[in-house]
Amino acid sequence: MSNTEKNYRIERDGIGEYRVPSSSYYGIHTARALDNFFLNNCKIVNPEIIKGIAIVKLAAARANSMEKKLDSAKGTEIKKACERVFNGEFMDEFPLPAIQGGAGTSTNMNLNEVIANIAIEAMGGEKGDYSLIHPIEDINMSQSTNDVYPTGVKIAAIKVLRELVEEAMKLQEVFQEKEHEFAHVYKLGRTQLQDAVPLTLGQSFGAFGEAISRDRWRLYKIEERLRRINIGGTAVGTGVGASLKYRYYVSEELKRITGYGLARAENLIDATQNLDVFVEVSGLLKTMASSLNKIANDLRFMSCGPLGGIGEINLPAIQMGSSIMPGKINPVGPEFIKQIFHKVQGNDLIISAAVADGELELNALTPLIAESLLENLELLRDGVRMFSSKVIPGVTVNEDVCERMLRSSLSTITRHIDTLGYDELSKILKECEKTGKTYEVILKEKGLLEE
Amino acid sequence: MSNTEKNYRIERDGIGEYRVPSSSYYGIHTARALDNFFLNNCKIVNPEIIKGIAIVKLAAARANSMEKKLDSAKGTEIKKACERVFNGEFMDEFPLPAIQGGAGTSTNMNLNEVIANIAIEAMGGEKGDYSLIHPIEDINMSQSTNDVYPTGVKIAAIKVLRELVEEAMKLQEVFQEKEHEFAHVYKLGRTQLQDAVPLTLGQSFGAFGEAISRDRWRLYKIEERLRRINIGGTAVGTGVGASLKYRYYVSEELKRITGYGLARAENLIDATQNLDVFVEVSGLLKTMASSLNKIANDLRFMSCGPLGGIGEINLPAIQMGSSIMPGKINPVGPEFIKQIFHKVQGNDLIISAAVADGELELNALTPLIAESLLENLELLRDGVRMFSSKVIPGVTVNEDVCERMLRSSLSTITRHIDTLGYDELSKILKECEKTGKTYEVILKEKGLLEE
Amino acid sequence: MSNTEKNYRIERDGIGEYRVPSSSYYGIHTARALDNFFLNNCKIVNPEIIKGIAIVKLAAARANSMEKKLDSAKGTEIKKACERVFNGEFMDEFPLPAIQGGAGTSTNMNLNEVIANIAIEAMGGEKGDYSLIHPIEDINMSQSTNDVYPTGVKIAAIKVLRELVEEAMKLQEVFQEKEHEFAHVYKLGRTQLQDAVPLTLGQSFGAFGEAISRDRWRLYKIEERLRRINIGGTAVGTGVGASLKYRYYVSEELKRITGYGLARAENLIDATQNLDVFVEVSGLLKTMASSLNKIANDLRFMSCGPLGGIGEINLPAIQMGSSIMPGKINPVGPEFIKQIFHKVQGNDLIISAAVADGELELNALTPLIAESLLENLELLRDGVRMFSSKVIPGVTVNEDVCERMLRSSLSTITRHIDTLGYDELSKILKECEKTGKTYEVILKEKGLLEE
Amino acid sequence: MSNTEKNYRIERDGIGEYRVPSSSYYGIHTARALDNFFLNNCKIVNPEIIKGIAIVKLAAARANSMEKKLDSAKGTEIKKACERVFNGEFMDEFPLPAIQGGAGTSTNMNLNEVIANIAIEAMGGEKGDYSLIHPIEDINMSQSTNDVYPTGVKIAAIKVLRELVEEAMKLQEVFQEKEHEFAHVYKLGRTQLQDAVPLTLGQSFGAFGEAISRDRWRLYKIEERLRRINIGGTAVGTGVGASLKYRYYVSEELKRITGYGLARAENLIDATQNLDVFVEVSGLLKTMASSLNKIANDLRFMSCGPLGGIGEINLPAIQMGSSIMPGKINPVGPEFIKQIFHKVQGNDLIISAAVADGELELNALTPLIAESLLENLELLRDGVRMFSSKVIPGVTVNEDVCERMLRSSLSTITRHIDTLGYDELSKILKECEKTGKTYEVILKEKGLLEE
Repeated sequence: MSNTEKNYRIERDGIGEYRVPSSSYYGIHTARALDNFFLNNCKIVNPEIIKGIAIVKLAAARANSMEKKLDSAKGTEIKKACERVFNGEFMDEFPLPAIQGGAGTSTNMNLNEVIANIAIEAMGGEKGDYSLIHPIEDINMSQSTNDVYPTGVKIAAIKVLRELVEEAMKLQEVFQEKEHEFAHVYKLGRTQLQDAVPLTLGQSFGAFGEAISRDRWRLYKIEERLRRINIGGTAVGTGVGASLKYRYYVSEELKRITGYGLARAENLIDATQNLDVFVEVSGLLKTMASSLNKIANDLRFMSCGPLGGIGEINLPAIQMGSSIMPGKINPVGPEFIKQIFHKVQGNDLIISAAVADGELELNALTPLIAESLLENLELLRDGVRMFSSKVIPGVTVNEDVCERMLRSSLSTITRHIDTLGYDELSKILKECEKTGKTYEVILKEKGLLEE
Repeated sequence: MSNTEKNYRIERDGIGEYRVPSSSYYGIHTARALDNFFLNNCKIVNPEIIKGIAIVKLAAARANSMEKKLDSAKGTEIKKACERVFNGEFMDEFPLPAIQGGAGTSTNMNLNEVIANIAIEAMGGEKGDYSLIHPIEDINMSQSTNDVYPTGVKIAAIKVLRELVEEAMKLQEVFQEKEHEFAHVYKLGRTQLQDAVPLTLGQSFGAFGEAISRDRWRLYKIEERLRRINIGGTAVGTGVGASLKYRYYVSEELKRITGYGLARAENLIDATQNLDVFVEVSGLLKTMASSLNKIANDLRFMSCGPLGGIGEINLPAIQMGSSIMPGKINPVGPEFIKQIFHKVQGNDLIISAAVADGELELNALTPLIAESLLENLELLRDGVRMFSSKVIPGVTVNEDVCERMLRSSLSTITRHIDTLGYDELSKILKECEKTGKTYEVILKEKGLLEE
Repeated sequence: MSNTEKNYRIERDGIGEYRVPSSSYYGIHTARALDNFFLNNCKIVNPEIIKGIAIVKLAAARANSMEKKLDSAKGTEIKKACERVFNGEFMDEFPLPAIQGGAGTSTNMNLNEVIANIAIEAMGGEKGDYSLIHPIEDINMSQSTNDVYPTGVKIAAIKVLRELVEEAMKLQEVFQEKEHEFAHVYKLGRTQLQDAVPLTLGQSFGAFGEAISRDRWRLYKIEERLRRINIGGTAVGTGVGASLKYRYYVSEELKRITGYGLARAENLIDATQNLDVFVEVSGLLKTMASSLNKIANDLRFMSCGPLGGIGEINLPAIQMGSSIMPGKINPVGPEFIKQIFHKVQGNDLIISAAVADGELELNALTPLIAESLLENLELLRDGVRMFSSKVIPGVTVNEDVCERMLRSSLSTITRHIDTLGYDELSKILKECEKTGKTYEVILKEKGLLEE
Repeated sequence: MSNTEKNYRIERDGIGEYRVPSSSYYGIHTARALDNFFLNNCKIVNPEIIKGIAIVKLAAARANSMEKKLDSAKGTEIKKACERVFNGEFMDEFPLPAIQGGAGTSTNMNLNEVIANIAIEAMGGEKGDYSLIHPIEDINMSQSTNDVYPTGVKIAAIKVLRELVEEAMKLQEVFQEKEHEFAHVYKLGRTQLQDAVPLTLGQSFGAFGEAISRDRWRLYKIEERLRRINIGGTAVGTGVGASLKYRYYVSEELKRITGYGLARAENLIDATQNLDVFVEVSGLLKTMASSLNKIANDLRFMSCGPLGGIGEINLPAIQMGSSIMPGKINPVGPEFIKQIFHKVQGNDLIISAAVADGELELNALTPLIAESLLENLELLRDGVRMFSSKVIPGVTVNEDVCERMLRSSLSTITRHIDTLGYDELSKILKECEKTGKTYEVILKEKGLLEE
């Protein structure tokens, strides 16, 4: 037997024969897709999506078993194989790039093949012997990529979303702690970067926390939106190839396995072709990212210095800032957050443009939409975690600087508007400018201010 | 008296003197801004925003009167002037461009000046005689641009939103009518633009209607988000210059005048500096626009022809299509919708990027954010109206074409997957290709299909 | 004669009859489009586009005359009418919204009708008597919207572009003047908003000027790209309905009239269906806007204050900044520029997304693409003008603040890296922090620095 | 010695001590950054950027050696180490995420550390013994992240760009081959998806090729723009820490090593803080992506079917299309291209928004900008390769379908516009509709058409 024959097995599909590495659990459909969608240095399919679909495969196997469509011996092994995949085994067998043509078919096929071959081996067969268990006829039974893939994506999204919720709670908490810690520190309020009126540094951090609390509410809304799934609709939502019983069983099983409160959409044709919910969800995530970017701006501004700038607060030194300027510490935490915002905003555009680009009974660009959404969820989760664990708790205030900035500004003059009026005060300010005196001095000189 | 003196009056501010057209109700602040923000061929401030702020000015005048801070005679005339403005009089006196520096200060000043001069004239004075009524000290009493402007914008947005809700309801209805009208017409379902499995044309229109029904729900959510206002917070949310009583009165009056269920934000500092709610609302509107674009794609595709394309449906002829090809009718309705989608998506980007660009106690880019939001609301309102009144009701079906397309396709083969399996069917299809026979013929030859 | 009959005339097209205001120079096609594309509060077609197309109509009339296809008497009046339109007369007769379905057909028809009726009246006829001169058969002779409209848009774009070039030159000049004015003022350089190493304020303004000089070069490139036109290609670029002679004449006439160095594309089919040049041009304009935004950021940062911030420079007071805080002056100029950037970036997205959305022999979304491009050109032209006339020349420096900031920072320590090394300096800085001494004192104490 | 002590070594920086895996060539700065910028499932720094910076490090080492600042023995080992890195060794030692705060400092430090430790080992030392060779004082000598990082990124970008140029040439060629192959096939031209006038399928592919030829020209322009580097400017462009001789040597060496015609910018302060060139380059790449998306649309449309749609052309079957519909082949190639367009457009937004977000002497978001640019270059390179190798060559035409579509349409009527006029033809078309006769029949009946 030649070396080549040992390293490859031959599989067949409607197009013809194709070589598959003999050690691979994936088969011909994955191998072709790997070749077709070759992207050097591209992300692969998000592992959470693989796991989400594996859950769907498990639920489908259970439902097909309950319907007696799936042979009991086969069914047992298939279900075990699904469990191993969603527990994170075999992740190397999912090498497809995140960007791929075919609306997710290649990823679905990848799962069908890997699960089949795991089960085949468990039954004592050899990888590729699909007479034992067939990737499409058995593993994909009663299913279509068009209902399996989006359902798996939503399960994945809910999982990461819940992790993000945890992180958002912590971030809100650390902001609230800082709100109390800095409650007594008066500082200059600035509108349009110009001296305005006083507030406390605690109020600033309180406003940050309040913004995040709205985001938390939005994250709950997102889960509601993601819970509606189209499993059972198969190719275009009419359910061809799936029995009514199967449809009921599979969604019940999905609820049971995930515990997520999933619900099958009433209009499966609509749910298969219209991906507006991803635009909605992405918009809510972008909202959170916008607030984080604004907060990052503020932290950078207030900590600008340390000596030749604003310097009202200090960010913790989490790494050295420069390869040439000794002692320089940079606001790398907020800069990290800002880049996450920009990335989230870019992905949001990708999502809405791709959803709008849908046509007829299916959106062919679903993989890009799904991967962009998962990426945004993960970026926000990890960015928020960094912010709440490494940056915010270590923020300290320079009270003397806050006080100096406040005193040197004109920020307190607005208090007198009620008694003196806008025009009179404007005139006094002009006099300040001319004479170099503070407005309090002039007010006293004019007898407008009691000592 | 020279000619120039007749055409201009001189006003003064903290910077110096400036000429104002003597016929103008607006004053020096508006005149300076007009010169500073000169944009040839740019949209002016949205009239709904002017009216929304006029409502805020009325509520503030009432609140100041209730607090006895505003002289009764003055107050009466100011309130009358506010009413005239929000009823649409004097619209020519608001010539500022939609894009303007200053976070809305110029627009707020424009209202202060116009209302003051209307009231001054009503009291028998001459325009510009601010000793009678002062644009800032009287009209802007207890207020800052930073609470007045966003509150006015939200009132304006809710008004247009409600008009959009009306139009969305009508669109959903016409889709549902078509769903029933076309319930019996079977057609080819297409995924990735390739022949898939059958569904009815009614189901297609049903899916359109279902998508719009989700948008309607989102529109209700939008109103909830917009109802939270920051009036009473003045410059940075600490309420400097506004008494506690005033704050209570003014929000009560706003509720009374608008009937909108407005509620003052609990944390006014947060509500003044964080504009995340505009990103959230914009994202929900973009979701609707994405769905509309997808529907427009489908209508264009299905009506592609009339003879040399798909031709499953006809769109009503609402205008001639070509200046060179006689008889050509184009899908101008869906094309209009598609452009509205692209514009809405562009504006959504503007809104999120500008909100994220906020700093410290105020977002200086608020005018661009507000105008982009209002534009999206109006574009959707008018686009949806066009769709539901001129395009959808006139859609007709070519049943013979639908039937021919369906029959000529392979779309019904998937029905046999349960009995014959994926691999067997794939082989049969290869045979079809080779022999030119239909798959039904081959199935019968093989004894796999009963007559 | 009834009142209605007096106010309206009846016109007919392939669809049927329609009322047109009897005073209108536009006709049935415009009237239908006005009704179809009703957008409250939307911009109308850019007047420069109307004028650009009028130039094309003139060139076409001349070419048709030279070919003897156009009757001499008619031709004379048509040419006169075209000239009146592109000289700015009759602008009220072009009321169509900027967003419209039909790839520009309605605007082209609008011009056909207005020019026809002007010529008809000049010949003694009555508006609407198209037996004298026909909007399509005469005015649109040898043309299609699909070659006329894009050609007119490019002529319009080059016109505004040249105005922008003038403004960019002036901006570069005022930056260079400030470069010299501030050449002697040392200030703290900041990277990532943290104290870095010194440079001069002149160098900062020099960098601004250098960025604009690159933009000027880009603007020249833009004109090159816009000069390639597709006139003569008619409907799909095959030139159906236009003779070879006409094609030659019309492009020669366009060159003569505009003086712009226009050149007909070699592959007219490509030039009709592919609008990539608009994406390219828009990208170059966005590049300029990005630089302007960055410059605006810097001006705002350095002028942050006046007292409680950075305060290194002062921006000129061009208007009062607040309706509640007397004496407040805001950086409204840079804020105006920043909003223009955001708008330009939004329009760039609209352009690329709409160009990519093209199909087959024509891009149906051309009006949105064209209007967005013209808007960006005008916004940049007017924004740059404001910047160079009202903001930059009035910038002043607070030399004492610059010096204080520089001295108080650690910015000069990097000079010693060559002799002392990064690690040694880092240790010294730690000692500074502990002891409160400046690093120079410590260096001297350690004998590492000569007096 | 405990287990922990064996697995970790302790390194120190200005902040304190930190554990580094003892097997790692990277050191404390990388280890801190890995912890700070933890992103699960995020791309790591593009290997081409690592290699590009390694080239800069080599040139700097050579320049420092020529200046006798770098000890000869050290220098020899450092240069060898740089060469090993840019030849692709040690890639596992660069584990930092693509998104990171700090303007690239962490990646620069990563290179400094890995190169230092490779050289230390080569000199017989142990990793971490920086008394032999110091990552900052030796490897980073005369450099700052702020000149090294952008220079390395541009070298990386030019490398990938040239690969893209190769692929674009091939794509243009295969389009031209198809232009010739299909030169004789007449088909229906469609504007706005409606029957228009005839052209040949060869002309369609010729237009695709022409669009790509413009992109090739743009790619050459991109290289010109990328060649201007800021090496030698160090921290803010003033060159602090780098001698004049070094500046000259290092850029000469970079030219020699790369062969790219690099040129140091004249104004290094500008070149350090203004990243407009990345926006410009990204815009040109987006232009290419827009054209590719449009071409993908057309291929999908024309191949829509195979039987129940348009079916004018066939795309090659490169993989099976469905897990439920046997025999289905989908246009996965064009779908792949479309997703690449959307991704490129998203990245372009990220780039322009991040560049515009720059401040003062440095853009803190440079890593995101650089990574997004490299990603777009690689996506286009690989997408174009797939298109030209797997999709376009295998396109076949269904001549009978093209002919049937053309004949059944009204596309040829426009030929008669010269002789019969627009209005007459419109009337005839109305008669067609009423009678069901073709227009040719009616023309003959009316004696308007000779046999």
